[in-house]
Amino acid sequence: MSDTLPPVIVLVRPQLGENIGKAARAMLNFGLVEMRLVTPRDGWPNPSAGPAASGADIVLERAQVFDSVAAAVADCPHVYATTVRKRGVTKPVVTPEQAAAAIHQAPGRSAILFGPERSGLETDDVALAREIITVPINAEFGSLNLAQAVILVAYEWSKGTGLASPPETDLPAPAPQEELDGMIAQLDVMLQQTDFFYPPARTPVTRRTLRTLLTKPGWSSQEVRTLRGVLSALGGKRPRN
Amino acid sequence: MSDTLPPVIVLVRPQLGENIGKAARAMLNFGLVEMRLVTPRDGWPNPSAGPAASGADIVLERAQVFDSVAAAVADCPHVYATTVRKRGVTKPVVTPEQAAAAIHQAPGRSAILFGPERSGLETDDVALAREIITVPINAEFGSLNLAQAVILVAYEWSKGTGLASPPETDLPAPAPQEELDGMIAQLDVMLQQTDFFYPPARTPVTRRTLRTLLTKPGWSSQEVRTLRGVLSALGGKRPRN
Repeated sequence: MSDTLPPVIVLVRPQLGENIGKAARAMLNFGLVEMRLVTPRDGWPNPSAGPAASGADIVLERAQVFDSVAAAVADCPHVYATTVRKRGVTKPVVTPEQAAAAIHQAPGRSAILFGPERSGLETDDVALAREIITVPINAEFGSLNLAQAVILVAYEWSKGTGLASPPETDLPAPAPQEELDGMIAQLDVMLQQTDFFYPPARTPVTRRTLRTLLTKPGWSSQEVRTLRGVLSALGGKRPRN
Repeated sequence: MSDTLPPVIVLVRPQLGENIGKAARAMLNFGLVEMRLVTPRDGWPNPSAGPAASGADIVLERAQVFDSVAAAVADCPHVYATTVRKRGVTKPVVTPEQAAAAIHQAPGRSAILFGPERSGLETDDVALAREIITVPINAEFGSLNLAQAVILVAYEWSKGTGLASPPETDLPAPAPQEELDGMIAQLDVMLQQTDFFYPPARTPVTRRTLRTLLTKPGWSSQEVRTLRGVLSALGGKRPRN
């Protein structure tokens, strides 16, 4: 777990309450809870936000409203501005991945600015930030909406937290070799009663090929038992009437 | 640029045309253009899809419709199933990041399955896949919608497109899914003539167990042919005198 504080998500002059709700949902999915709103167009609270948040109410309830971007980030030593395309600004441009790594290292609070749906951040908003986050995107089709931009940034941040510990799998261990050998021996006996190993000169190669492909899966003991049941059934033991 | 093919995005029984459009938009943002639809609830084309795609029309125009998941992934040797939560399945679980890295290394086409909005993939859909992709998410609030899941997977894939790492493996590619399906069907017919599927009530579970363990190895086309030879031999074709 990172010891540093999670970043604050700042929506600058957001237009639709629905998009504020979607951004809240995107945030909470990846463990971010602090949203700040700068002069939302339709005021706050906004009745359209709740339904779109799909249960991320805690983010909306805690959201704070500010009169200016400067006020919203006043307590944050690290301010990032998200933009879709590079602009003629002379600031470092980083990916969400690079920003997330920096945020996890940074002492003090980080804030990430997202602009209004239609137009994005103004130059004056960007000027407040030390760095710019740009999502590398299809140059011929850049069409990230607000919630999508938020979710990608939140997702990258979450990788540095406990959330991102590699998922555990229930994959069982491969069976001990002797169990696999038992199955291969059973199959071999059955195949000797057919023409599978014909001609005899090729039998060693064929046996090796079979062993290789049956060893490859790493089947569990249970799987080996199932396959031995298959072989027994095919071999005609206990034929069904 | 990676030399390998971009993955196919397979929407399994999607419900709303709007969500199909949003998924298309998510894909094209990160350079993915091939969408396949398995029995979309409201048919196809769907007039709600276009407006939601925000200009990603090329993805919708090229979308192909299939009657079954098996048909949709028939040409794909690497099939991933996306699920939100862990299930009691014995398959490897990977993050979008890990899956993306593997897809960039994999010879042959990869397909990524996404389930219906409300319920996600069925167990039988997951059974077709070799690996499961799960986005590490806030355990107390997991609420990723379809387009969000698609965008995270597409985004991770896009990160590898700038890299020039040629696929380096001597391992043969897994056989296309239809070849594996042919072998499983051959075995199934043979087993129906035995008591293997007894009692009948357990047959679906037994079939799924078999499919899972036969999907696990990632056998090559040559290996599948060898195994079909084994089955033919055991089935008594051309019995040796």
